[in-house]
Amino acid sequence: MQRGFTLWFTGLSGAGKSTLAEHVAAELRRRGLQVEILDGDEVRTNLSKGLGFSKEDRDTNIKRIGYVCKLLTRNGVVAISAAISPYREIRDYNRAQIGPFIEVYVKCSIEALTRRDVKGLYKKALAGEVKNFTGVSDPYEPPLNPEIVVDSERQREAESLRAILDYLERHAWIPQDPSRAETAQRRV
Amino acid sequence: MQRGFTLWFTGLSGAGKSTLAEHVAAELRRRGLQVEILDGDEVRTNLSKGLGFSKEDRDTNIKRIGYVCKLLTRNGVVAISAAISPYREIRDYNRAQIGPFIEVYVKCSIEALTRRDVKGLYKKALAGEVKNFTGVSDPYEPPLNPEIVVDSERQREAESLRAILDYLERHAWIPQDPSRAETAQRRV
Repeated sequence: MQRGFTLWFTGLSGAGKSTLAEHVAAELRRRGLQVEILDGDEVRTNLSKGLGFSKEDRDTNIKRIGYVCKLLTRNGVVAISAAISPYREIRDYNRAQIGPFIEVYVKCSIEALTRRDVKGLYKKALAGEVKNFTGVSDPYEPPLNPEIVVDSERQREAESLRAILDYLERHAWIPQDPSRAETAQRRV
Repeated sequence: MQRGFTLWFTGLSGAGKSTLAEHVAAELRRRGLQVEILDGDEVRTNLSKGLGFSKEDRDTNIKRIGYVCKLLTRNGVVAISAAISPYREIRDYNRAQIGPFIEVYVKCSIEALTRRDVKGLYKKALAGEVKNFTGVSDPYEPPLNPEIVVDSERQREAESLRAILDYLERHAWIPQDPSRAETAQRRV
């Protein structure tokens, strides 16, 4: 059976966590792994209806995602979380609960995010129209020692994806890409 | 990979759902399957803190268990729920969400449960000291068409366990018991 682990994305809204999570998931499925993405919005609907965006409610929500990741992980599934998860303490709590936990910090400056602002949320937050907005009116605590850092301001998506897959291959969390392995063999 | 499914126990408090769930889980693990039990109390702590025992809160709790069962099931895990789950509509909602869903009704009369009353809860409920107590001061809706019925008033635990395993084997949800399969072969 495959080894389960949790791949925990963290970063500001719009930094590219969900997109990267989907690309990683697609690639891991291509390699025959069981993968489940826990997306912030879907989890809020299914596990955390009624919770808001106060520190306490955010913490509860992130712990619930962590609990589900734990159940999946210990049953051999790759669980991928793509929620903002702004507080270091709660991410570390989940790490301790889950065990095989790989943190991916998706770095991007507020300036770059405000320039992109796909959903127009940063403009609203900076104008004070959205309360408890992480990075503007609510804190974001970057991880001190994440397993993987990708910089969505300077790296292209394909590079970030490559960096994550490289890490997972190097630490034998996932099998080598079958097509690349073949190429490597032909070279020998 | 193994086929995931959800084994959904339902029945009154004290009927024997959790004990049976644990025996089934142990036997399935012995046969090499990945199994996760979602116990009512543990789930309340981890996913439903703050919810009470009103119909709405119970429904939310049972839907959350159903959601986690769905994630496990679609990743090839056997998810076992052992919560009372008193309302037919919500069990059927979970069935529709999950797909491979096998309902086990653990039958036992209130009279027998009051005689046993391991935790003393029925006495308290009948005296009006515990509110919203399923089967006494709160409704319990037995399933109309469960895949499996066990009668914990008339059957011994080993018989109930056998009935569940037989069903799962007959419908090829689980592999035959390796030791029994061998015996059968020797007979031929």
